Amino acid sequence: MEVRVAILGQGYVGTTLAVGLERIKAGEIPAWGVPFGFPKDFLREPKLTDIKIVHSIDVDEAKVGKTLYEVAQQYFPNLRIPETLKEVRVSRGIHLGSTRGLPLKARGLEEETSLQDAVERIVSEWEKAKVDVIVNVITTEKGPGIGNWEKLVEAIKKGGEWEGGKLPATYAYYYAAMLYAETVKPVAFANAIPITLARDEAAVNAAAQRNSIVLGDDGASGATPLTSDLLEHLAERNRYVKGVVQFNIGGNLDFLALLDPERNKAKETTKSSIVKDILGYDAPHFIKPTGYLEPLGDKKFVSMHIEYISFNGAVDEMIVNVRINDSPALAGLLVDVIRTAKIALEHGEKGTIYEINAFFMKNPGPAGAKSISRIVAYQLLIDWLLRHEALE
Amino acid sequence: MEVRVAILGQGYVGTTLAVGLERIKAGEIPAWGVPFGFPKDFLREPKLTDIKIVHSIDVDEAKVGKTLYEVAQQYFPNLRIPETLKEVRVSRGIHLGSTRGLPLKARGLEEETSLQDAVERIVSEWEKAKVDVIVNVITTEKGPGIGNWEKLVEAIKKGGEWEGGKLPATYAYYYAAMLYAETVKPVAFANAIPITLARDEAAVNAAAQRNSIVLGDDGASGATPLTSDLLEHLAERNRYVKGVVQFNIGGNLDFLALLDPERNKAKETTKSSIVKDILGYDAPHFIKPTGYLEPLGDKKFVSMHIEYISFNGAVDEMIVNVRINDSPALAGLLVDVIRTAKIALEHGEKGTIYEINAFFMKNPGPAGAKSISRIVAYQLLIDWLLRHEALE
Amino acid sequence: MEVRVAILGQGYVGTTLAVGLERIKAGEIPAWGVPFGFPKDFLREPKLTDIKIVHSIDVDEAKVGKTLYEVAQQYFPNLRIPETLKEVRVSRGIHLGSTRGLPLKARGLEEETSLQDAVERIVSEWEKAKVDVIVNVITTEKGPGIGNWEKLVEAIKKGGEWEGGKLPATYAYYYAAMLYAETVKPVAFANAIPITLARDEAAVNAAAQRNSIVLGDDGASGATPLTSDLLEHLAERNRYVKGVVQFNIGGNLDFLALLDPERNKAKETTKSSIVKDILGYDAPHFIKPTGYLEPLGDKKFVSMHIEYISFNGAVDEMIVNVRINDSPALAGLLVDVIRTAKIALEHGEKGTIYEINAFFMKNPGPAGAKSISRIVAYQLLIDWLLRHEALE
Amino acid sequence: MEVRVAILGQGYVGTTLAVGLERIKAGEIPAWGVPFGFPKDFLREPKLTDIKIVHSIDVDEAKVGKTLYEVAQQYFPNLRIPETLKEVRVSRGIHLGSTRGLPLKARGLEEETSLQDAVERIVSEWEKAKVDVIVNVITTEKGPGIGNWEKLVEAIKKGGEWEGGKLPATYAYYYAAMLYAETVKPVAFANAIPITLARDEAAVNAAAQRNSIVLGDDGASGATPLTSDLLEHLAERNRYVKGVVQFNIGGNLDFLALLDPERNKAKETTKSSIVKDILGYDAPHFIKPTGYLEPLGDKKFVSMHIEYISFNGAVDEMIVNVRINDSPALAGLLVDVIRTAKIALEHGEKGTIYEINAFFMKNPGPAGAKSISRIVAYQLLIDWLLRHEALE
Ligand SMILES: NC(=O)c1ccc[n+]([C@@H]2O[C@H](COP(=O)([O-])OP(=O)(O)OC[C@H]3O[C@@H](n4cnc5c(N)ncnc54)[C@H](O)[C@@H]3O)[C@@H](O)[C@H]2O)c1
Ligand SMILES: NC(=O)c1ccc[n+]([C@@H]2O[C@H](COP(=O)([O-])OP(=O)(O)OC[C@H]3O[C@@H](n4cnc5c(N)ncnc54)[C@H](O)[C@@H]3O)[C@@H](O)[C@H]2O)c1
Ligand SMILES: NC(=O)c1ccc[n+]([C@@H]2O[C@H](COP(=O)([O-])OP(=O)(O)OC[C@H]3O[C@@H](n4cnc5c(N)ncnc54)[C@H](O)[C@@H]3O)[C@@H](O)[C@H]2O)c1
Ligand SMILES: NC(=O)c1ccc[n+]([C@@H]2O[C@H](COP(=O)([O-])OP(=O)(O)OC[C@H]3O[C@@H](n4cnc5c(N)ncnc54)[C@H](O)[C@@H]3O)[C@@H](O)[C@H]2O)c1
Ligand SMILES: [Mg+2]
Ligand SMILES: [Mg+2]
Ligand SMILES: [Mg+2]
Ligand SMILES: [Mg+2]
Repeated sequence: MEVRVAILGQGYVGTTLAVGLERIKAGEIPAWGVPFGFPKDFLREPKLTDIKIVHSIDVDEAKVGKTLYEVAQQYFPNLRIPETLKEVRVSRGIHLGSTRGLPLKARGLEEETSLQDAVERIVSEWEKAKVDVIVNVITTEKGPGIGNWEKLVEAIKKGGEWEGGKLPATYAYYYAAMLYAETVKPVAFANAIPITLARDEAAVNAAAQRNSIVLGDDGASGATPLTSDLLEHLAERNRYVKGVVQFNIGGNLDFLALLDPERNKAKETTKSSIVKDILGYDAPHFIKPTGYLEPLGDKKFVSMHIEYISFNGAVDEMIVNVRINDSPALAGLLVDVIRTAKIALEHGEKGTIYEINAFFMKNPGPAGAKSISRIVAYQLLIDWLLRHEALE
Repeated sequence: MEVRVAILGQGYVGTTLAVGLERIKAGEIPAWGVPFGFPKDFLREPKLTDIKIVHSIDVDEAKVGKTLYEVAQQYFPNLRIPETLKEVRVSRGIHLGSTRGLPLKARGLEEETSLQDAVERIVSEWEKAKVDVIVNVITTEKGPGIGNWEKLVEAIKKGGEWEGGKLPATYAYYYAAMLYAETVKPVAFANAIPITLARDEAAVNAAAQRNSIVLGDDGASGATPLTSDLLEHLAERNRYVKGVVQFNIGGNLDFLALLDPERNKAKETTKSSIVKDILGYDAPHFIKPTGYLEPLGDKKFVSMHIEYISFNGAVDEMIVNVRINDSPALAGLLVDVIRTAKIALEHGEKGTIYEINAFFMKNPGPAGAKSISRIVAYQLLIDWLLRHEALE
Repeated sequence: MEVRVAILGQGYVGTTLAVGLERIKAGEIPAWGVPFGFPKDFLREPKLTDIKIVHSIDVDEAKVGKTLYEVAQQYFPNLRIPETLKEVRVSRGIHLGSTRGLPLKARGLEEETSLQDAVERIVSEWEKAKVDVIVNVITTEKGPGIGNWEKLVEAIKKGGEWEGGKLPATYAYYYAAMLYAETVKPVAFANAIPITLARDEAAVNAAAQRNSIVLGDDGASGATPLTSDLLEHLAERNRYVKGVVQFNIGGNLDFLALLDPERNKAKETTKSSIVKDILGYDAPHFIKPTGYLEPLGDKKFVSMHIEYISFNGAVDEMIVNVRINDSPALAGLLVDVIRTAKIALEHGEKGTIYEINAFFMKNPGPAGAKSISRIVAYQLLIDWLLRHEALE
Repeated sequence: MEVRVAILGQGYVGTTLAVGLERIKAGEIPAWGVPFGFPKDFLREPKLTDIKIVHSIDVDEAKVGKTLYEVAQQYFPNLRIPETLKEVRVSRGIHLGSTRGLPLKARGLEEETSLQDAVERIVSEWEKAKVDVIVNVITTEKGPGIGNWEKLVEAIKKGGEWEGGKLPATYAYYYAAMLYAETVKPVAFANAIPITLARDEAAVNAAAQRNSIVLGDDGASGATPLTSDLLEHLAERNRYVKGVVQFNIGGNLDFLALLDPERNKAKETTKSSIVKDILGYDAPHFIKPTGYLEPLGDKKFVSMHIEYISFNGAVDEMIVNVRINDSPALAGLLVDVIRTAKIALEHGEKGTIYEINAFFMKNPGPAGAKSISRIVAYQLLIDWLLRHEALE
């Protein structure tokens, strides 16, 4: 059962996904970091070898027109890159200013033609590539949701005007995905970035009406799921959390992008909601993607401090310091987001699927759904997979 | 529904339990640290206010004959101790050398009379006190299990001779508990120390035959359950753990006792089993209660290092440093061990109960049962409570 | 040899200084945290018992008019406050908006009378109290230096107009101190806050012309001197620092004040200069007072990450997590800032004194002076004390 | 000014030294990690390029007879090893059981011939190689000092019998070095391992009588100098250290060797002495090389906890976690031990030199000398270099 994947944003995450997947498929490395991938491939199907990256979009001039092989060499100069990555070439996407402030030269299709045209061109490329799953990993965008589908249709027509500013590129891609679903076949759109999409009713309805699926929002790959499991650990022992501090600093382009206060805000919101959701009370917390320091590269540094009250008034203290390779953390999860999305499509499910979101996403859709600890979410996901007879 | 509790070992844990419980019952402090105790009392019954400590045993001359109030003053010189603790006086117990190497003067009943007599004297005291649950928190002891009940009966007769050495005091107390069950009423024996008991078939059978319950072994209060939840977190993402380091150091009498290599070994075994049980492979690990440093007091220092492989071969690193008040951590759990034990007794259950052990104990009985992550164990326990209609 | 001290800003630091000093003088606690204070009092004179706090200024309505005893009770509700603190009452000072944004009601003398009058009133109070040393610990202020003395005179006349905004209160107090020096006797002004003063040529000249002394800037009490000693440690082994991360978060009023970006900037500058000064190259760094979290109180949490290259290209990593009681850290140092200031006055020194600043201050004056590691600075200070025959 | 170096123990440290040095000399990498080596070569002479490794000894069958190039390939399989390392071949040394317990096949010259002969054979090889400096980095050995030179002469004659056991191999090599000094030319012997040598009066006298130098003991490369600088930092602020915890764990052969309690003890002693020496009082401490965990490899994990009292009775806490590449840390220092040793020889100095030892060694000779903080020691060393006109 083949799964044909299109990537939006051929950056660190997108490229790590492509490279890691091909190396696993070629038997060069084990599938560590893929939840259901190792020591054996636990999913009945699709198998890891069934995943094919067939399309890629970016707006960075340094990438558009290059093969994934060439892009991968930029990220991993010392690695032997799989030859299979020569088969896909990065297409130009829709920009709408999403890279503002970043040190790169970006241009979108909408600068050559109308936005409506741009959308259609992308849809026809996806059609040729027979895409099943679209993975969104473009630069962090902020947005409170589409809200109203007509408004989106309008914005596309008006070349991207949106609430006095610009339409987020993600919403334009989502519009394209829905057009694809109408005209070609049902599709799954996995939104791994912080912008609101699977938590937006209009977006979920749009998918449902087209027998399609939207998953999201914001991949739960790093410090946040760890914090959530630590809080769950304390909650189950009924220890009273006095305060939570979580600092994040990294040196990749994503952290640089987060220096922009708007983008940072988007990230912060998804991170903070977990405290109340898990503890049941809103313990004072300071949880932020805090800074950029170039020499850290993709291996971010996270520092947490949690102080809590135990039995008989005793005060305990927990300090957690982590070095996490940011992009592989998400890329490994995305492999199984892709596979579970395909399973859901095959079963004719539509709208969004909380059981998938709750484990894989920081801010799980649909709107109003709670963050739960990852370990509890994992049990939910396992149950879902069992119900779908997807486990070996 | 009253629960009448007897304590074995009126040390730091035993005294923290008594003090904290009375302060909660008096409304002086909230029930933080008691899993089902706060913000409301989640158990239908017994309520927190139903728990009564009615008997206490120790062998330390500085404690025997004193009221719990006086003992509590030794541990908490600056705290207002609840007056209700004046009602219970520490009785002399069975020593059998369990405090060897420690800087205290200890004497057991068996030095004044025969061991069989000593046992009977204790049983009759428990009878007068109408004990329901016995909690074992004496100094760490080691022992591979009773193995064979006849052998134990023999050992009691012979004044405590046992495999060329001395019978562990815990086994003598367990013998007394079984005699109590035969002659008075069913009882629950909660073994919160590392010695093998709930994981011993002979012990479990003995309890079952007397409509009684044995829970254990070794309270899961500190760094080990945290480590187990961290490993589960990694396992669910299929990250490959290269190695686990866990150091423990504290300044209470229990850490001093662990300087004795035999006792240390007992502790180490329960701690190490979790790695394989949770990860599925035996990742190299160094997990030890390592040292004693007096100024740390009851607030131990734990340092962990976990290195693991993520997607695409990336190597991540997690460092966790914790300051945990050791005794309150266990004492808070014991409150609900006592309550769940009583619930089980009321339902006529016998032998041992994995659902309780798996959450509360490091080395959960019965023999051969697996350590699972605490968060998973918590779900099991919740299910068990629901089945027993015990949750409000 | 009595030292008569006036405090500016009767906040957490100022009050900890007053309370700790009286407790030491009364023999209630040892002089830990005072560099030359214990196990014996190493300074020939003044002795610790020679220090007298004789005057105090604040603008917070909750403090003005109260005795130091009453103010101390607000900060340390559970401590027995020394009675001697009843002898000093907090006078109203000059506000000039220095507490803007903080949740307190503040009013300055300049709201009742002219600024020039306000200054004179303070001078005459100091005169009555026969002040030798003035310690500035008001809310963090920012300022690039006085620059030109005439300009300052002008600003005082104009009621505090200054470069299109308001004159920093510190500069008004410094003006008062210089007036005191002219009309009463030489004085030492110790500036323990981040505003530029001892690094300002105009300020240093003003002091020198009046046989007076200015010390500063910004007390070196917390994470920064530790970072500087760690960097010195690496520099001496010639390890190449790839990057330095330092996060700070606390829950006292000073951290709350630092949420104001202007004040934060002032703090950041003093913190960052050390990297280049000590290493000789400007290693990439992220060193910030980052956040406010109320439950941390005065005990801030600091997290540092330093990655460096060792011999043969090996990459090492250092993570430092500290809980520091912020106010005692500075207050303990201030005790010996006061004493060394007095020694300097007695020797007729004037202007500023690098040997004192280099050890006690983050941003040591005079202008252009380098930050050096504290341990090296300590040797300098010892030499200075030996030259002044001040050590026992 | 050439310096001709002989290595004893071609292990991880010895090989890192050889590889790193040749790479620096070839301009492949900068001299980071060499205290006086970069950004320029600060020593007038010898220059880095003047150092020549001309002789090497080991007892491991997997190394004896191989070139340093081949040995280096075993340690650094992915590195381009400098061709110049093909010029030196590992000679067989004296074993005397120094590798007992380790998983390697070792054989010493004394198994083929008499110990006296073995010594002479080594001396004649050194003579051919015109050795100036001998660096001892064999497997950790323990020994309380030679004590009496006649006794050593006797032990050599008796084939290595020594106090009812075996003579440490280090003492046999030292005997050889002294024979070389008598018959060939003055030599410097740098003892980088924990065994007592430069702190032994007999050894120092033996060197002095032969116009030679002995430096040591135990290279100060890792966590201990860092601890010492942290303690100095606290001591200078007169903060009272309540307790110090320091755990060490690593995965190289040296950590495996330390599982042997005797060797561990040797290491522990040098580590613990610093607390009292620096603080002036013996703060409770737990400082140990604690464990072995293979996957950590040469990059050890160190965890420290220091709790101290600050002004006004406040209690602060410092937690330091470090990953240090163990062998490069020492190898980089050894480069300048070699160069300063040569400078001393050129100036006709003899015996031992505290100024060199105090900075480079954990347990600085001569007997009775104090450990001082490294940063203070560095000033001493700089002064010594200035007096010898050795700095550029
Ligand atoms: N662990 C993680 O790395 C992690 C976790 C959760 C979420 N995310 C999210 O994943 C996204 C990608 O992270 P990354 O580290 O790969 O960032 P990146 O900056 O390396 O890659 C982003 C890529 O998107 C491209 N892009 C930007 N705007 C585009 C547009 N309009 N159309 C097409 N391409 C566009 C950029 O040119 C770049 O190549 C971010 O939004 C981030 O918030 C990452
Ligand atoms: N978090 C925790 O503190 C924790 C966690 C798991 C297990 N435990 C176990 O709990 C036990 C108690 O720990 P603690 O910190 O209270 O130790 P403790 O040393 O403070 O108390 C032990 C008490 O038992 C008494 N005792 C010893 N032998 C006895 C005997 N034969 N009969 C009666 N009393 C006897 C001692 O006199 C002492 O009062 C230990 O075995 C420990 O391993 C503790
Ligand atoms: N370790 C440390 O705490 C540390 C280290 C270095 C520097 N500092 C500096 O010390 C200062 C004091 O810190 P704190 O923790 O005591 O802060 P705080 O907020 O507790 O105290 C400041 C006090 O100054 C008073 N104040 C404000 N403006 C005033 C004015 N114009 N005149 C008179 N009083 C005024 C406030 O009312 C308050 O009582 C800050 O500037 C801080 O940057 C503190
Ligand atoms: N940072 C550090 O690594 C550090 C710091 C201080 C001291 N040291 C000391 O340096 C020494 C070497 O450390 P390492 O990591 O290189 O250890 P290693 O085990 O890698 O190397 C030791 C080498 O010595 C050889 N050897 C053993 N006995 C010998 C003998 N009698 N004659 C000749 N060779 C012999 C072994 O075969 C091995 O090749 C140890 O004693 C250690 O305590 C190391
Ligand atoms: Mg990223
Ligand atoms: Mg304990
Ligand atoms: Mg402060
Ligand atoms: Mg080593």
